[in-house]
Amino acid sequence: MANIKDVAKKAGVGIATVSRVINNSGYVKSETRLKIEKVIKEINYMPNEIARSMTLQKNNIVAFVLPNSTHLFFGELLYYVEEELFEYGYKVMICNSSEQLEKELVYLDMLKNNRVDALILLTNNDIEKYLDKNLRVISFDRRFEGVPYVASDNYQGGVMAAKKLLELGCKNFMFIGDDAQGDSTPVITEVTKRRIGFREYLHSVGIDNVVNIEYPLGNYMVSTEEVHDMLTGHMDVDGIFTISDAVAWAVIKELEKNGKRVPEDVKVIGFDGGRSFINLGKRITSIGQNPQLIAKAIGESISSFYNKSTVEDKIIPIYFSEGETA
Amino acid sequence: MANIKDVAKKAGVGIATVSRVINNSGYVKSETRLKIEKVIKEINYMPNEIARSMTLQKNNIVAFVLPNSTHLFFGELLYYVEEELFEYGYKVMICNSSEQLEKELVYLDMLKNNRVDALILLTNNDIEKYLDKNLRVISFDRRFEGVPYVASDNYQGGVMAAKKLLELGCKNFMFIGDDAQGDSTPVITEVTKRRIGFREYLHSVGIDNVVNIEYPLGNYMVSTEEVHDMLTGHMDVDGIFTISDAVAWAVIKELEKNGKRVPEDVKVIGFDGGRSFINLGKRITSIGQNPQLIAKAIGESISSFYNKSTVEDKIIPIYFSEGETA
Repeated sequence: MANIKDVAKKAGVGIATVSRVINNSGYVKSETRLKIEKVIKEINYMPNEIARSMTLQKNNIVAFVLPNSTHLFFGELLYYVEEELFEYGYKVMICNSSEQLEKELVYLDMLKNNRVDALILLTNNDIEKYLDKNLRVISFDRRFEGVPYVASDNYQGGVMAAKKLLELGCKNFMFIGDDAQGDSTPVITEVTKRRIGFREYLHSVGIDNVVNIEYPLGNYMVSTEEVHDMLTGHMDVDGIFTISDAVAWAVIKELEKNGKRVPEDVKVIGFDGGRSFINLGKRITSIGQNPQLIAKAIGESISSFYNKSTVEDKIIPIYFSEGETA
Repeated sequence: MANIKDVAKKAGVGIATVSRVINNSGYVKSETRLKIEKVIKEINYMPNEIARSMTLQKNNIVAFVLPNSTHLFFGELLYYVEEELFEYGYKVMICNSSEQLEKELVYLDMLKNNRVDALILLTNNDIEKYLDKNLRVISFDRRFEGVPYVASDNYQGGVMAAKKLLELGCKNFMFIGDDAQGDSTPVITEVTKRRIGFREYLHSVGIDNVVNIEYPLGNYMVSTEEVHDMLTGHMDVDGIFTISDAVAWAVIKELEKNGKRVPEDVKVIGFDGGRSFINLGKRITSIGQNPQLIAKAIGESISSFYNKSTVEDKIIPIYFSEGETA
């Protein structure tokens, strides 16, 4: 009967690598994992997967709860998370919450009932009271007491946008975003730091009259009509930083409708990276998030749950994404 | 101790509905399902989920294998499939195959090992020999012997594009797509029918000199450089139908680079629906696929596996999506 040595020999790898694949206990390159799995099948070395999972108390599934996977950046993040976790032997279960807390809780229950091994949580809801630091949850873009998180360096993103608009000669600044720190709702996401970095940097150079527009949290697909109302009375601004490229899109459309030229009259910088492969017009100037690095960090964090007692928080660098709107 | 009647009463629904939720045996509106699940928890009526799954031989997970969820249309389809299957009590596991057959086979094995209940397969690979008509597989946009499929009405989409371009006065036609029927590769997808419908309709009105460009299958993100080569020697065409909006995008960019105006000099119709929320330029004229209806059909098919002996193939209507490029 075939044993682990036969598998290693036939696949041309070490026993330790085969063991990592079988026990699902660490990172193995996709190509190598697929090769080993193929050999295991070919020579019929197939330990009972379910029995093994039961012993390990693992079923090798990670749930990813996010508001909406058709949001361009979230969709990219999902893609890389699935690709990265596959290398660790995990399959990814997707939950588009559409911002419904109740739906998020269904997946949290699956975690509590051991139907999934870990949960990646991307939410704007008031879910904190249902969390517990003993659960294997990784939060993206949001801090919860005792829950490890991964986020882009949103603060530096705000600083970078402010510096760029100043460098381009802007005088009257505006921030548009859907956070609401210090206001009615108590939900504070990491994303708020985009605004804080932007305003603090401008403050440090003596600029305090930044027009600050906030709209209800979680409203990713803001319409040009809504933006119309936001801009009313502020048509003198010449440097706008928005919380996402989707919002920048609506802002630019609305400015142009009002006879403003972008970037000649008003410069607009978005957030996420300005990627969109069927954009037939200008490319949005943007602060880029790197979904591949974020996915890598999430993969490491989930792996750490099984190897370490503490999982580190991780802040991922942002970058300036050249475009045609600033 | 709480029983099913208490749950039904408190949730304000019939016992049959609660039973459908518990046994995961049919469609229940998301809102209703969430309400029932909440009541079940509140009054502590919690049949052992795992034991129940074992009895039913179900784990309520459906895997969705697709090439790349960042492709705009596939991403939308994934969103609606997850939303729809949630109503049937299924969770969705995502696999971005990136066209790797080996990765697809990992998920097919999960189906064979009962780790997932059903598989939605969207592939260009030569996977037919691994399939078996007793497996619960739904194929999208591709026909395999004995495997039920769901597809948009691609043939009518091609006819619709041809009619529209004729109506707009085009004389010299071109089709660009990544299918290869009758050529070296034996893989024929349903998508091929876009070309067949387009060419057969033109043939029926006496037009046979359609320039037909084919490029390697599965190359969704065709670059403007590749399109440059495709268009070389064919700069006299004035009506182009492409297999996707992503390809239409590259074609339009390349035409404009060559001094052609779209739609004045050349009219271009894409396929998928022309949706993109950060497009700052022209909206692509397109034949639209309806991801919501497709997801509904997939949900019904998967549900039918457990209720009927045969699962019907389903063809979903397409629609004309008004734009600015034709």
